[in-house]
Amino acid sequence: MAAWATSKTVEARRGPGVHHPGVDDTVSGVWNRRRGVEGVWPLPQTVTTSPERYPLNSQAFYFGYGRQSAAKPGCSVLDAAFKRYFSLIFQDYTSGNGPLRFNQNKPFTVEVSVDHDDCESYPNEDSSERYNLSVSAGKASLNAETVWGAVRGLESFSQLVYQDEYGSYFVNKTEIDDFPRFKFRGILLDTSRHYLPVTAILKTLDAMAYSKFNVFHWHIVDDPSFPYQSSTFPDLSSKGAFHPMTHIYTQSDVRRVISHARLWGIRVIPEFDSPGHTQSWGKGQPDLLTPCYRGSTPSGTFGPVNPVLPSTYQFMTKLFKEVSSVFPDSYIHLGGDEVDFGCWKSNPDVRAFMQKMGFGGNFLKLEAFYMESIVNITSALNKTSIVWQDVFDYHEKIPKDTVLHIWKGTGYKEELSRITKAGMRVVLAAPWYINHIAYGQDWRKSYTVQPLNFSGTDEQKKLVIGGEVAMWGEYVDATNLHPRLWPRASAGAERLWSDEQQTSSVDKAFPRLQDFRCLLVRRGIRAEPLFVGHCKHEYQGI
Amino acid sequence: MAAWATSKTVEARRGPGVHHPGVDDTVSGVWNRRRGVEGVWPLPQTVTTSPERYPLNSQAFYFGYGRQSAAKPGCSVLDAAFKRYFSLIFQDYTSGNGPLRFNQNKPFTVEVSVDHDDCESYPNEDSSERYNLSVSAGKASLNAETVWGAVRGLESFSQLVYQDEYGSYFVNKTEIDDFPRFKFRGILLDTSRHYLPVTAILKTLDAMAYSKFNVFHWHIVDDPSFPYQSSTFPDLSSKGAFHPMTHIYTQSDVRRVISHARLWGIRVIPEFDSPGHTQSWGKGQPDLLTPCYRGSTPSGTFGPVNPVLPSTYQFMTKLFKEVSSVFPDSYIHLGGDEVDFGCWKSNPDVRAFMQKMGFGGNFLKLEAFYMESIVNITSALNKTSIVWQDVFDYHEKIPKDTVLHIWKGTGYKEELSRITKAGMRVVLAAPWYINHIAYGQDWRKSYTVQPLNFSGTDEQKKLVIGGEVAMWGEYVDATNLHPRLWPRASAGAERLWSDEQQTSSVDKAFPRLQDFRCLLVRRGIRAEPLFVGHCKHEYQGI
Repeated sequence: MAAWATSKTVEARRGPGVHHPGVDDTVSGVWNRRRGVEGVWPLPQTVTTSPERYPLNSQAFYFGYGRQSAAKPGCSVLDAAFKRYFSLIFQDYTSGNGPLRFNQNKPFTVEVSVDHDDCESYPNEDSSERYNLSVSAGKASLNAETVWGAVRGLESFSQLVYQDEYGSYFVNKTEIDDFPRFKFRGILLDTSRHYLPVTAILKTLDAMAYSKFNVFHWHIVDDPSFPYQSSTFPDLSSKGAFHPMTHIYTQSDVRRVISHARLWGIRVIPEFDSPGHTQSWGKGQPDLLTPCYRGSTPSGTFGPVNPVLPSTYQFMTKLFKEVSSVFPDSYIHLGGDEVDFGCWKSNPDVRAFMQKMGFGGNFLKLEAFYMESIVNITSALNKTSIVWQDVFDYHEKIPKDTVLHIWKGTGYKEELSRITKAGMRVVLAAPWYINHIAYGQDWRKSYTVQPLNFSGTDEQKKLVIGGEVAMWGEYVDATNLHPRLWPRASAGAERLWSDEQQTSSVDKAFPRLQDFRCLLVRRGIRAEPLFVGHCKHEYQGI
Repeated sequence: MAAWATSKTVEARRGPGVHHPGVDDTVSGVWNRRRGVEGVWPLPQTVTTSPERYPLNSQAFYFGYGRQSAAKPGCSVLDAAFKRYFSLIFQDYTSGNGPLRFNQNKPFTVEVSVDHDDCESYPNEDSSERYNLSVSAGKASLNAETVWGAVRGLESFSQLVYQDEYGSYFVNKTEIDDFPRFKFRGILLDTSRHYLPVTAILKTLDAMAYSKFNVFHWHIVDDPSFPYQSSTFPDLSSKGAFHPMTHIYTQSDVRRVISHARLWGIRVIPEFDSPGHTQSWGKGQPDLLTPCYRGSTPSGTFGPVNPVLPSTYQFMTKLFKEVSSVFPDSYIHLGGDEVDFGCWKSNPDVRAFMQKMGFGGNFLKLEAFYMESIVNITSALNKTSIVWQDVFDYHEKIPKDTVLHIWKGTGYKEELSRITKAGMRVVLAAPWYINHIAYGQDWRKSYTVQPLNFSGTDEQKKLVIGGEVAMWGEYVDATNLHPRLWPRASAGAERLWSDEQQTSSVDKAFPRLQDFRCLLVRRGIRAEPLFVGHCKHEYQGI
């Protein structure tokens, strides 16, 4: 009666802890399928692994800085990472149930060396995430150009560690050279359609780091609510949030998110989408939105931001000045999508402005005029603008350093061609709108995306700086966010990090993703199952 | 860019606590939309409500037994219900943050009277759940035939209570006469495809009671795993569970589930599905499954239960004897669905048996022979059998008191006609397979089901004893069970409890279900959102 489902019965996959020395260790093929190369998600660029294994004892396990390392003890990013990864590696040590051995304390040290002391900086679009990890007897050497690369390498190291059936920890002799295929690997969360508590965002950042995502695209405001508490315009949230006290992000909340993200090497890019998607803005900012007319009288409803009033641009200048200083990343997302011209058309002041500007009846020109002004405001603040593809579609004259964000599912390959042909950089989100759920293993669709499979030159392909997995908020809040995101988003993560040739088989990815999903669950992430089976350690919450 | 989604922006719905005295109270229509009639989910059969309201003070609020009540203090069901509902009604009292008022302690008493002292019994198929609730100044009178009816009435009472903007609690003058449309209102959980921790099951039972479900159909074992720890056949779980220690239900776990369910007036019906869906049984019970043959030699794989060996029926007799005593309900679900004849056909012993029995080549006769034997075993144990529709489809001679369970989505109305025409009782699950998720508001489909809209006489309609919402486990475990179940299952709950005429509009149900979903969240159930918006109290876990 469990019909309409895949009728195939799948054998329970045992967790990675089941490791038979003397059997698996000597049969490298079998062993590899269980740990090693395939034990790291997303798959590293190159891995050499061996059945030779080394015991890890939590009583004698150390993270340390290499002598050549530019970062030294006191480095906030690495000190924090060492502490976190110790707990992630020795899960049952943390919970007090680990095996204690007072003899045979063979020490093991993970020695981290980085070329740059970027410990107190923020990750940015040019940050190298390359690392080299070499695991040998008693020691792992992790070398990276930046602390962000080191954090990626620590994640890989943590995924190499496993427990045997006695609970003992091991890591195998391994050599990894790794770097991301794309430098922009984002997750979009939408905190306007539903408010997400800060804790839910922080946990998302943790899980992002486990999949090596490096951009949190914070779609912070939109039509339904304006939870960002602006210090310059406090009415925006006090009137535009779902609740002025409980459903807002204070400045301190925002700082907490940015700081947490930084320690994982994750950039935080806020989106203040306009001129459409701004209904909630209008509640706290009089005259910002266009009054719609029915015939010759205002109807009482409002449309997009009013592009004809100087006060609009004064407001935006102040708002983006604040936002630019609150969010350290060099990118700001300006939206620019889905503008409905109906209200503008109805408004006599807008029509008069069109006349004056010589736009005729072409409201795309008005929209372009507006977006150009906004882009100029953020440019003056030394920020790179990222905008939805609509802005390219109606206005090809935007500054060359603007990043276009493709969201329309239909024809996204043609759009990739067009935008890159114009020499513009692009982030691809369209095939990863995973808020769109479907029954069954819909992660396979995300996995088999080929982001560069579009018609264009090598130069064009280089303009695809990455991709983004989007979790829009119509049907998502803290109750279901994590199981919808994980491990479905991780499918996109591998596509954006790993070599496409090596990860072309979705069937080979399946058992690896199942293992990775169990690792997420073990780490307290409510990652949903991919199919029938179990994890050694099931989710313990309810 | 949140495209492909409903583009309509929906205003945030404020929680039920926003109550403006002097406005809402005097405008009964407005007030009604907020609380009162529509404040109870599923909608009671008849409600009379008034804007007159009474304050409730947690310092002077009492549950008590009426003088005429057959149940007295010490009644386990009602004592437990009083304790639970006090905490559910005064949520912030429980958490220590409630408003304390040392003066004006106007007492309020909910006086419960029941006709039968069934306090220590189990709910059964004939248990009345009818209740009458009369809320007036300082007092609510709740009368029911049974303690189970009283528990349903307490749920309704708890949903009538609301807080104003000062946090003060109120209940309005109200009169409710209520009873369920169908006496069987079930939820199926599948603990074989994924193991569900006992705590996840207990929480499901809580949420079921909030929606007035009264049957927990425990699909406890199936092909992938056998988590039921049998005292007679311990190998079934020690060899057939995902893990013999962590992924099992001990006898004490099962008792805990049954006892928890009892206190909510919920029956627990276990399913031991055979002869198909038994792969996991075979691991711990040699010779139980049919050896499949390739040509003239066994292939090493196994098919359905072996129907030709006497040992099979000896085993089943012992197993069902145990199960009958462990599970007090008079129903046992015997499965009987989706039997693949391929293996039986391949096996020479089975073919010889067919010959001997005169079944010719008709394996349906063999299947019928098997099911008849199993039904006879449980009949001898004084249990009513419930079986999937397949058993009716291939074998119309099953005992008249067998209940048929419709699961096939295609043609379920015709199947309702056929089965009831044969005079058999039926439970309808087909339109409520809510493990099948879809993007958007798929609860609407569950809500608009018309279970009696099939061709048949009034007598036939009476044979539809109820319905069941099924959450099969292919893609569900503790990580995502609750947000997938709630509030989607509650749509089916109203269809099964309430009058169809009064609940024919899915659009009218929408805001009520949104409010009810916020109530679930407030009670700690991870119920997912229906659409854009917020709850006054969001889910606080992560």
